[in-house]
Order: sequence, then structure tokens, then C-alpha cells
Amino acid sequence: MGNDALLTKLREALGKDAVLTDTDVTDSYSRDMMPLAPSGRPLAVVLPSDVEGVQAVVRACAEANVPIVPRGAGSGLSGAANAIDGCVILVMTKFDQVLEVDSGNRLAVVQPGVVNLDFRNTVEKHGLFYPPDPSSYDWCTIGGNLSTNAGGLCCVKYGVTTDSVLGLEVVLADGSLLRTGRRTVKGVAGYDLTKLFIGSEGTLGVITQATVALRPLPQAPATLVAGFDHTDKAGEAVARVVREGLVPSLMEIMDASSIKAAEHYLNTDLGAGSDCQALLLCQSDSGGEAARHDLAALEQICTDCGATMAYATDDLAEGKMLLQARRVVLTALEEYGVWLTDDVSVPRTRIAELIQGCERIGQEVGLRIAVVGHAGDGNMHPTIVYAPDSEDEFARARKAFDDILELGLSLGGTVTGEHGVGKIKREWLEREIGPVGIRVHRQIKQALDPENLFNPGSMFSMS
Amino acid sequence: MGNDALLTKLREALGKDAVLTDTDVTDSYSRDMMPLAPSGRPLAVVLPSDVEGVQAVVRACAEANVPIVPRGAGSGLSGAANAIDGCVILVMTKFDQVLEVDSGNRLAVVQPGVVNLDFRNTVEKHGLFYPPDPSSYDWCTIGGNLSTNAGGLCCVKYGVTTDSVLGLEVVLADGSLLRTGRRTVKGVAGYDLTKLFIGSEGTLGVITQATVALRPLPQAPATLVAGFDHTDKAGEAVARVVREGLVPSLMEIMDASSIKAAEHYLNTDLGAGSDCQALLLCQSDSGGEAARHDLAALEQICTDCGATMAYATDDLAEGKMLLQARRVVLTALEEYGVWLTDDVSVPRTRIAELIQGCERIGQEVGLRIAVVGHAGDGNMHPTIVYAPDSEDEFARARKAFDDILELGLSLGGTVTGEHGVGKIKREWLEREIGPVGIRVHRQIKQALDPENLFNPGSMFSMS
Repeated sequence: MGNDALLTKLREALGKDAVLTDTDVTDSYSRDMMPLAPSGRPLAVVLPSDVEGVQAVVRACAEANVPIVPRGAGSGLSGAANAIDGCVILVMTKFDQVLEVDSGNRLAVVQPGVVNLDFRNTVEKHGLFYPPDPSSYDWCTIGGNLSTNAGGLCCVKYGVTTDSVLGLEVVLADGSLLRTGRRTVKGVAGYDLTKLFIGSEGTLGVITQATVALRPLPQAPATLVAGFDHTDKAGEAVARVVREGLVPSLMEIMDASSIKAAEHYLNTDLGAGSDCQALLLCQSDSGGEAARHDLAALEQICTDCGATMAYATDDLAEGKMLLQARRVVLTALEEYGVWLTDDVSVPRTRIAELIQGCERIGQEVGLRIAVVGHAGDGNMHPTIVYAPDSEDEFARARKAFDDILELGLSLGGTVTGEHGVGKIKREWLEREIGPVGIRVHRQIKQALDPENLFNPGSMFSMS
Repeated sequence: MGNDALLTKLREALGKDAVLTDTDVTDSYSRDMMPLAPSGRPLAVVLPSDVEGVQAVVRACAEANVPIVPRGAGSGLSGAANAIDGCVILVMTKFDQVLEVDSGNRLAVVQPGVVNLDFRNTVEKHGLFYPPDPSSYDWCTIGGNLSTNAGGLCCVKYGVTTDSVLGLEVVLADGSLLRTGRRTVKGVAGYDLTKLFIGSEGTLGVITQATVALRPLPQAPATLVAGFDHTDKAGEAVARVVREGLVPSLMEIMDASSIKAAEHYLNTDLGAGSDCQALLLCQSDSGGEAARHDLAALEQICTDCGATMAYATDDLAEGKMLLQARRVVLTALEEYGVWLTDDVSVPRTRIAELIQGCERIGQEVGLRIAVVGHAGDGNMHPTIVYAPDSEDEFARARKAFDDILELGLSLGGTVTGEHGVGKIKREWLEREIGPVGIRVHRQIKQALDPENLFNPGSMFSMS
């Protein structure tokens, strides 16, 4: 089947408004948010609105031997959703319904195109809580979250996306519909296919529905901010929090560059003092006495580790304002150039070493690197700033990006904590998991998608 | 290679004391605790003590085309570890070391032959907590827990085995060693192979090591016991606990038959009264004021739902005694015959229907069925009692076993909440997950174990 015949078939199946070929339009669907990743030009962008539509697309593309790149909103940071030349981009944003909220069993059934924040708001009306909260939560979709196994600020207490999912509905490479998992909170009938598809970055199938476990709505958080005049001291505080068994609901770290950028952008003073090298932001959502107890224990640890300032508040607005400083860092960095954010996760005892290493790498390449991260689970986002019109700076940014991954691995960490491998870290995945690991990936991919229909060349190559 | 050549090779690789062929001995390794499951006679039982030994066994058996059935202590309840005729039973109990406890990163590295309780005790000395606590925790091994994705009483708050595992080391069918996962709490580099091997019941590889995430040691639990004169009322209490967002650290249910058996066995009165149809046992390990608050809220719900008695205590010994009643039920039932315990998980709103359905099934087959279960996560263990010497009663027990699975499915549940599929629920797995699900299982098995070396015919057949 030629391309024209494929387009005709797609239009017949989905209606012509759901098949886009105008390159002005299709180009806007051809990239996610990662500047390093290559992208091609798609043959078409399709927007099915039901499972039968997805199945029709998959079958038609399989017959025409045209690869499919599934995507959601495009907030990804690994290029996993980037087009490859001649592919069909399968956009899932029309799957935008929360199909069910079952309070009695604390679960929901949701379509992949629902925006994370909309889903959170919907279940909140039932007094329930969906924890995964990637930074892009106000525009990323549940489907993208599932495909990348997204994390966020909640993870230190509530885990990542996979920890909230009970079951999936997936269209496979032959167009058949697989249902994985179940509606019960426990179940061991067969292999855990649910968690195999979560985080598979669109390489194994197209997720068309998810059944997720919800939690009780937590209490309004109380917040602690602590400043340190040396990164080591902040790192030691994080390690002690872990060692002493505290589980804050949020524990973020900002290095000196991040603090300065945020203060400048917000035109405020975070009270950390001019010699502040690291800021820890912690929250407890245990409520009332328990939260006060949590915060007092966290504050004690920070003080013991030499914090030069520590300030706790259970005022919700004030807590939000403090957290705002953490949330604006990437935007604040845009004042200095274009940012390129990395994503490594290290053992929680090695955070200070990672931050110091990034400072060294920044000096070596002559670029600003600001480190923000989810200290409570060791997932750091060193963010490199470069001039958008300088090829030389871009090349140096790219080198720094790789040096940070190297550093993360050398500290016993992983090359991606939550953003994924996509089209930028294939070689790094291979380095991290080794030849046996890559072979097993290929075997599984070959078993489920023998024609390499879904997102070929993303995450790993087949040879 | 013939059997004699294989035995020679195994003895060369492991030493002759680690290769057992005396049928008096090998027969004792040929079954787990599930009376319904078929078992064959192994060619040999081998007990390697290091990874190289496991690799040698796998390579030799592959060459000789002799299937391998991996096993731990044999506490399983699905026959997954049962021998098939002519197989090699690969016993992992010599892998009995806790290799590392890292308090700073709250993780441990453990070998599969370590007994669950020994592991719990070891990490407890570091102030840490390994949640999974299957009923056989004083003799089952971590390797068996991993292979079945074991649960226990902790799951309502802390999840099942898979929720605690960061990474594995696995010997594959070609003898190569795969390392999955990582030491960091977050990481999305590649497919989630860790969770694919967990719960795969020895069909995909041999787990030789696990890196597990630990939790802070919880507070000593406070306990609530509540009695109801109708199962519906207890079921409504469970649903309300879920709906109102309470997360007890334990929430068990016992039906009238279980209560009577336990009271008789312990020669005690649980204070539930003679008309008691269901008992709820709840704990909170939040400590102090928070635990008192949890228990008061749980007690209020039970009272609102019509509990005829409710008694709360933060006395540890008293709490243990009450929990003892739940823990002795299976042993207590042995007074009436042999027990056959089933394992279904249903949505938490359907627990009362399951218990009442089991009562009806018991009447239909003319056998005692006692229901105990993890009410907090809907995982019920209806336990059928039959006379050991009656073929007729055994046949009726078997019918009841199937009828309970049918009932579980009809209530939107799963045919196994934590015991696994093994050699007794293959047809039921197929019914639950359907032809597409079974096909995907076969594709993955074929990809990773093309010669069907590991535990062939367990969980599902290849045709």
C-alpha cells in the first residue's frame, strides 16, 4: 500500500478532519520539549477518538509498513514523541474523558488524553487524590505520564505513575486490544503486563485507557525552608532525613544558581542570605499535630547539619509562595538563555556530590548550570543555560549534558529518573543496563511488535 | 546429553553433595503446600550456592533439554514449585545472605534464600522495615516472595512485594546474567524488567539477588476489633473505611466459621457474641495521637454500620493476642479435616457478597467453608475443609474451589490475589485475561525462554 492509499484508508476510518497532512500543522506535532532530540517530518498526524479508530490506524499503518509515533500533549523531555520521517503521528488528545470515579473502591478509569491537572481536579471533587504530579501537570496528559512513567514532586512519599496504576487497555501492533491488570488493589494473575507497558515510551503499543488507584486527599501541607552555606551540609541533611525515617510529602533542593535565578525572576528575597549555596524545601501533608511534629523533626535535622536559616510555616499561601520559587526555576533561567534540562537519579547519600560535580562541569564548559531536584528521592535536574544563537554554546551544552550523565552513573545512579530515554539517551541506556539488558529489551520488543511498527529507534535500536 | 551425563555435569559444577537423586530425599522437594496441584518426580534436586552454580545448572539443563523448576522453601499455595517428571528442581535456599543494609539510602541487597522473617529481623536492627509479610513469613523465602509477588497482612497500607523492589539479578535461559533496575528510588531507564520478573513464578528466569527499598520502622500498632451480627454490616464498614479515606496498617476479616474455629482452638472467647457473623480486626501503626485518632475513626465507622461490639486497645500484647485469632484460623480448621485455601481478590465494596456467596457454596457442596481475608484490599481466602480420606469430599472441595473462583470473577475480581496461578489455575488465568492476554504471555515467554526450559506448563501452556 502506498502513502496515498494509506491516507485514504485513514480518512475513511477516522473522518477527514482527523487526518492532518498540511505541513504547517503537522510540524507543530513533530517535536516535544527536548531541544537535543532529532525529529523528522511525518506523513500525517491522526487524531482518533475511539479505540476502533486507533485499531484502524494501527492496522492500516502495519499493512503499509509505515511507523507510528504515539503522543499526547508533547510535554516530554526526551524526544520520545518526536516524529521520524514518513511516520504517522498518533495523537491521543481526543481521548479526553474521565470515564468513572469509584469512591467506594478508591479508583478511577481515565482516558489517556485527559490533562493531568484536570484529572486531579476531577477526583479531588470526590475527596480523592491522584499523586503523580510532573512539573508540566497543567498541560501534560495521563497517556504521556503512563508512557514515560512520570514522576514529580510527590514521589518521595507517593511514588511514580506506575505505583498508581491497576490496569490498562492497550492496542497492540496487530490491532488487537489487550486488557492488563484489574480493578482490585491486589492481584497476581499472570505477568505484570501493566507495569511493562508503563514507561515503554510508545514502543510496545498504544494505551487507550487506564484504571488507576486513588488515595485519600491529603491534609493541606505545612512547609519548611532551610538554607545552607555549603552544599555538603544540605546533602547531609537529606541523608539524615532518609536515615532517620522521616517521609516528607515533598523535599526539593535548589542550588545557588537556581536560588539566584528564582529570586531575580520573582523579584523577591527567599531569606537565604547571600552566601547560601543550597536551599531545601520540605512539606508534610500529615495534618495538624503530626505535620507540626514532622516539620519540627526536619527543622532539627537541618539545624544540626548547619543550616544558616530555617523557617517553618503552616500558612498555606506562604507555603505555596515558597514552593513557587522552586517551580519557576526553569522559566527564570530563560532570562539568561535557552535551557537544556537533564535528569539523573542518584542514591540519596550522593546528592551533594552530584551538585558539586555539576558546578565543576559548568566551569569546564563555561556555561551556567543550575541544579534543582527532588532531593527526597535523589532525582536531580541539572539545567544548562546556553545562548540560542550560538552553535558553539550549544555544542558545549551538549557536552555538559553528557558529562552530567557520566557523573550520575559514576555515583551509582541512573541516566534518567523520570524523563525517559527517548531519542536522546539510547547510547546511555545501553551503557547503564549493558548488553544482556539491551538484548532482553530487543527480545520483548520483537515479541510484541515484530515489524517494529511503534516508535522505531526510540529508547533502543533493534540491531 | 543423556540424564547420566547431565548428572555428572551437575556434580562437577556444584559438588556431589549439592546434587540429590535419592528419591526419598527428592520427593520431599517435589511439592509445595497446595494439595490440588499435580506433581511429578524430579530427575534430581540441586542446591547451588552461587551465581556461577546457577548458570552452570541452567546451561547443562538447556543442553540436555531437561526442564528446571526453581523453588525456595516450598510454602507456595499454587503448585508453581511442584516438580514435573524428569525435571531438575533448582533449590535456592543456600543463597541465604543479607549482603548489605544501607540505612542512608534505606535499601538492602538480599539473596533469594533468606527467610522472610530473618530478613525482617536483620533490617529491623537498622531501624528499618521490610513490609511484605505473607502468612508463612516465618519460613518462606524472599525468592519465593519475589516469584509469586507475595502479599500479606501489610498490603492495605504498604503494598505487595513488587512495591518494595528496586532491582534484581536474574539468570536467564541461556545462562546469561541479567541485572534489572537500580539502587535509586526513581529511575525509568528502559522497560520495567524488574516488575516483569516479579510474580513470573519461575517461568522466565532464576532470581539470584534483589535490591529492595526499605521503610522507616513503624510505630507499635494499636488494635481495634469489631463484631457484626450480619456480614453486610461488616462489608459496609470496610467500604466506608475506604470511602472515607482511612488507611489502617492492617484490616482483616473473619467470618462466623473462622471465628468459631479460632475460639475453639485457642479456647477463648473473642467477645463477639454468639450471633456474630463477621469480625473486623484493624490496626494503626501511625503512633501516639495519630493512631488514637485513626482507631477512633475506625471505631466510629464500625459503630455507625451497626457493630454489636467494638473494642480498641493500644496494649501491644493484647493486640497481638487478638491478631493471633486471625493467624491461627488455618491451623484451627485442621481440627475438622484437611483445609484447601482459595485466594480471590474482589473490589472492596463486594466483600460481603463474596462471603455470603461462599456460605451458599459451602451449603451446596455440604462442606465447611471458613472465610478469612485481607479486607482492606479485598483479598479473601475462603478455606474449604474436607475429610482427608474421602474421595467424594475431595471432589466436592475441588468443586467449591472452582465455584469460589467463578464467584470472584463475577464480582469483578481476580482468580488470585497473592498465591499465584501455578499448576492449579491455568484455565482460570485464561478465563480472566482472555485470548489476547494469554497470547502476550506466550510471546514474552517465547522471547525470553524459547526452549521452554523454566517451569514449563506452569501458569499457562505454550499452545
